[in-house]
Amino acid sequence: MIKKEPTKKSYFEVLRQRINIIIHGVNTPAGKLFDLLLLGVILLSVLLVLLETVEHLDNKYHEFLVFAEWVITIFFTIEYVLRIISTRKPLKYIFSFYGIIDFISILPMYLSFFIPSTKILSVVRALRLLRLFRILNLGNFTGQASELKLAINASRTKITVFVYFIFIISILLGAVMYVVESKESGFTSIPTSIYWCIVTLTTVGYGDIAPVTSLGKAIASFIMILGYGIIAVPTGIVTAQIANSKSKRKVFAPNCPNCNSQPLADDAKFCSKCGTKLN
Amino acid sequence: MIKKEPTKKSYFEVLRQRINIIIHGVNTPAGKLFDLLLLGVILLSVLLVLLETVEHLDNKYHEFLVFAEWVITIFFTIEYVLRIISTRKPLKYIFSFYGIIDFISILPMYLSFFIPSTKILSVVRALRLLRLFRILNLGNFTGQASELKLAINASRTKITVFVYFIFIISILLGAVMYVVESKESGFTSIPTSIYWCIVTLTTVGYGDIAPVTSLGKAIASFIMILGYGIIAVPTGIVTAQIANSKSKRKVFAPNCPNCNSQPLADDAKFCSKCGTKLN
Amino acid sequence: MIKKEPTKKSYFEVLRQRINIIIHGVNTPAGKLFDLLLLGVILLSVLLVLLETVEHLDNKYHEFLVFAEWVITIFFTIEYVLRIISTRKPLKYIFSFYGIIDFISILPMYLSFFIPSTKILSVVRALRLLRLFRILNLGNFTGQASELKLAINASRTKITVFVYFIFIISILLGAVMYVVESKESGFTSIPTSIYWCIVTLTTVGYGDIAPVTSLGKAIASFIMILGYGIIAVPTGIVTAQIANSKSKRKVFAPNCPNCNSQPLADDAKFCSKCGTKLN
Amino acid sequence: MIKKEPTKKSYFEVLRQRINIIIHGVNTPAGKLFDLLLLGVILLSVLLVLLETVEHLDNKYHEFLVFAEWVITIFFTIEYVLRIISTRKPLKYIFSFYGIIDFISILPMYLSFFIPSTKILSVVRALRLLRLFRILNLGNFTGQASELKLAINASRTKITVFVYFIFIISILLGAVMYVVESKESGFTSIPTSIYWCIVTLTTVGYGDIAPVTSLGKAIASFIMILGYGIIAVPTGIVTAQIANSKSKRKVFAPNCPNCNSQPLADDAKFCSKCGTKLN
Repeated sequence: MIKKEPTKKSYFEVLRQRINIIIHGVNTPAGKLFDLLLLGVILLSVLLVLLETVEHLDNKYHEFLVFAEWVITIFFTIEYVLRIISTRKPLKYIFSFYGIIDFISILPMYLSFFIPSTKILSVVRALRLLRLFRILNLGNFTGQASELKLAINASRTKITVFVYFIFIISILLGAVMYVVESKESGFTSIPTSIYWCIVTLTTVGYGDIAPVTSLGKAIASFIMILGYGIIAVPTGIVTAQIANSKSKRKVFAPNCPNCNSQPLADDAKFCSKCGTKLN
Repeated sequence: MIKKEPTKKSYFEVLRQRINIIIHGVNTPAGKLFDLLLLGVILLSVLLVLLETVEHLDNKYHEFLVFAEWVITIFFTIEYVLRIISTRKPLKYIFSFYGIIDFISILPMYLSFFIPSTKILSVVRALRLLRLFRILNLGNFTGQASELKLAINASRTKITVFVYFIFIISILLGAVMYVVESKESGFTSIPTSIYWCIVTLTTVGYGDIAPVTSLGKAIASFIMILGYGIIAVPTGIVTAQIANSKSKRKVFAPNCPNCNSQPLADDAKFCSKCGTKLN
Repeated sequence: MIKKEPTKKSYFEVLRQRINIIIHGVNTPAGKLFDLLLLGVILLSVLLVLLETVEHLDNKYHEFLVFAEWVITIFFTIEYVLRIISTRKPLKYIFSFYGIIDFISILPMYLSFFIPSTKILSVVRALRLLRLFRILNLGNFTGQASELKLAINASRTKITVFVYFIFIISILLGAVMYVVESKESGFTSIPTSIYWCIVTLTTVGYGDIAPVTSLGKAIASFIMILGYGIIAVPTGIVTAQIANSKSKRKVFAPNCPNCNSQPLADDAKFCSKCGTKLN
Repeated sequence: MIKKEPTKKSYFEVLRQRINIIIHGVNTPAGKLFDLLLLGVILLSVLLVLLETVEHLDNKYHEFLVFAEWVITIFFTIEYVLRIISTRKPLKYIFSFYGIIDFISILPMYLSFFIPSTKILSVVRALRLLRLFRILNLGNFTGQASELKLAINASRTKITVFVYFIFIISILLGAVMYVVESKESGFTSIPTSIYWCIVTLTTVGYGDIAPVTSLGKAIASFIMILGYGIIAVPTGIVTAQIANSKSKRKVFAPNCPNCNSQPLADDAKFCSKCGTKLN
């Protein structure tokens, strides 16, 4: 009996490892297949959420949609349990970002037993989309995406200043438009005017609210040209950032043999950190 | 009789070559004239398709439009037959991209004998527009277009990541807006909300669907500023790419034979470092 | 009598020169004052044209507006006559671009004697605005404007290719939308669909025509993201052009003392054209 | 008694200094706390102004909103008085930009005793938002904001030329559209047409006014593509400016004392040309 126990344990351990390889493995065929399957089920599941909300489709295929949703929920539940079993630190996974997303993905259907299914509950399932990032982060896209992320991160402070600036302008001009335009033309309160101002500054222009007085139209024209002009600012910031990071990577010369720092130009003859002669 | 056959064959061969020169020739006067004629007929034919769909014009000039369409169809049919005859490998042409376009261009009118002419059939003729590319590809524009194409191709992966990102955002924010806004304000289903979200993110803003609740307007404002900000990303990518390809192409001249420094311009006659004469 | 004639001639000549100095002079006080006066009258005159078309203003102040318009027309007539008199080659002026603009500026009021004043006739007066360019071209703005003009000119071919590409896309996608959407949703003919497609591609989005079918909305979403993406192309072209012309002008080193050509870099030691040593 | 006076004076002087430290101090804990408190009160006060204009909120909580407004007004009044007392040159402060903003911030409530409270008076309080700049200018954002400001300032002349160009185009095309389109489609006067033209050029596109004739739609399409294209110009200007100022600021380190070449980075310790140690 003493011998049996470790075997049992190792059985379980072996199982845990095999599940681990399938679920977390990227380079094994089984892992790749599982990722593809998961990708398909997630996309299908999100598609189901979308179609369910289309009234005439839901009326026709309600039974089928609910059935399919149950199949997917059970599939995700099994996957969730396997993920908990296969990790060494289950609690760490459960309270991680993806752990919570995974849990929320399966919750709504089970909750519908106890409480009547609401709009919010069924929409929460769309969060499954976030699970895509886990799969795709391990794929080929990461290189390109991370380069974009770097450029955006580097210009984050500038863009924050910019957004802050847009808010101040919108509040001030919104207040002015509230005074200038009457309630009849849609400017019923300052918050609504601010909303209109953002719609105009960003050149979206729904037209549900539009100025009717001459002065209002003149101010609106000013806001439009302003918005049309300042769109140049974030574009300029990001472009300069991307162009900069591009030119930084331009140097192809080998690193310094002494201190391993990257030379600053292809034709550098001496290392700028330690002064070692480069060949 | 034996002698006559080769003559016949060569007659045909000569004819084939003359047709070939006219249809495919670009540098011969006949070829140029034919291209210009074809350009005109294609533009005229597309114009006819457009005008036919304008009801009050079609009511007035229906007879004339049908007649003109027949003249053009017959012209294109003859051209199609000549193209098949004049090529050495007719099958290769027939199943090539342009071969299929050419065939589709003449099909609708002949089909109208057998089946009643439908909206789709007559619009298919607008595909003739694609034939323009064959003519213009041989023209002067190619240089400029291919440079643009290179820049776009080089940033294709980044733009794919970007479009993928926009889709994820649109689905998630669309689902949120579906919950926040009621059906009365146009957010009847998640797909419709996603459509609205794309309309807003891209700053198009039709206004056929627009938020009415305070929370909806707040989220919409956030989406607008987001869309207004992230437009900077593709612009930055393409700009950096174009600027980069521009600076790369700057100097093709060989390095200085004396000091091996790179000349600063293609037309430099003397090295700017040591004054050695460049050839 | 013989003596008198040259005096007369010289009187006229002196007058012609004085008028010339006032009208064409930029650096004389009288010329500057005249330019400022002209600037004011042109702006005032254009403002009058604008206000005349506002119905409730025209009803109230019709008499005054007509009177002011006559005063301005007479002022411009005198100026036109003086310009003809003061030039050595009157015919060259009369048939030049600005000569024709000047003539068209005064024509409408005199024509109103013979034919009833129409909408077009009164709007033609807005062309006086073009006269501003003559005055401002001589001002300080030219430097900046010409730099912009250079950058735009240099990227003209690329932008033409780009616009041509937008047109082809609009026609093809317009034809597709005409088939997909019904007449009830506003897509009454292909030209209208093309108009809608341009409205969408350029992210203007009036919303007077908007897709209602699912397929139509899907295609519209595609067009929007396309438009949102390709706006990067002209921006990239112009930006790279401006950045390029900026970096070209960066060299502050003095020109070559031998051949007077501009050195290609600040640290160039030898002229790249003639090989002369630079200090 | 002689001794008492200087003591009184110094009491007052000490108090003045302590107030000064609290109000103007940034690096002292008391100063920081005061700034944070002020920030909160300003934001709260602006929020109150916004909410007051929302009818259904004002109906419900009118009493509370007026009370809160009075509390804030009294707080700002005390702060205003303290600022006057604590400065050595009270008049300079009172007539400075922020002094006037501070005064205007407290005025409306006191005026409501004498004259009935109007829409304008209550909106004027939104100007308190401008007070934020005084607080934030002393914070961390300044570095980033001033860099943006520099780039925008440097391209100001070019952007002025650009805006001027847009105005001329809008007036001319507005006049053309007024002639082409009838009053029924919204083009009631040239000023309205100009407003529509700006709405279209800037790609805002409300849709409250939209062309209905074929010619009008064709011209509108032209304006849209024009607007879509020329947005590239300000973007290009600002981007080139930012990229330029970025590359200019790259290296501030002194040149190599041996070969006088510019170091390639601020933190370079050895010259990359000759290997001399830099300090």
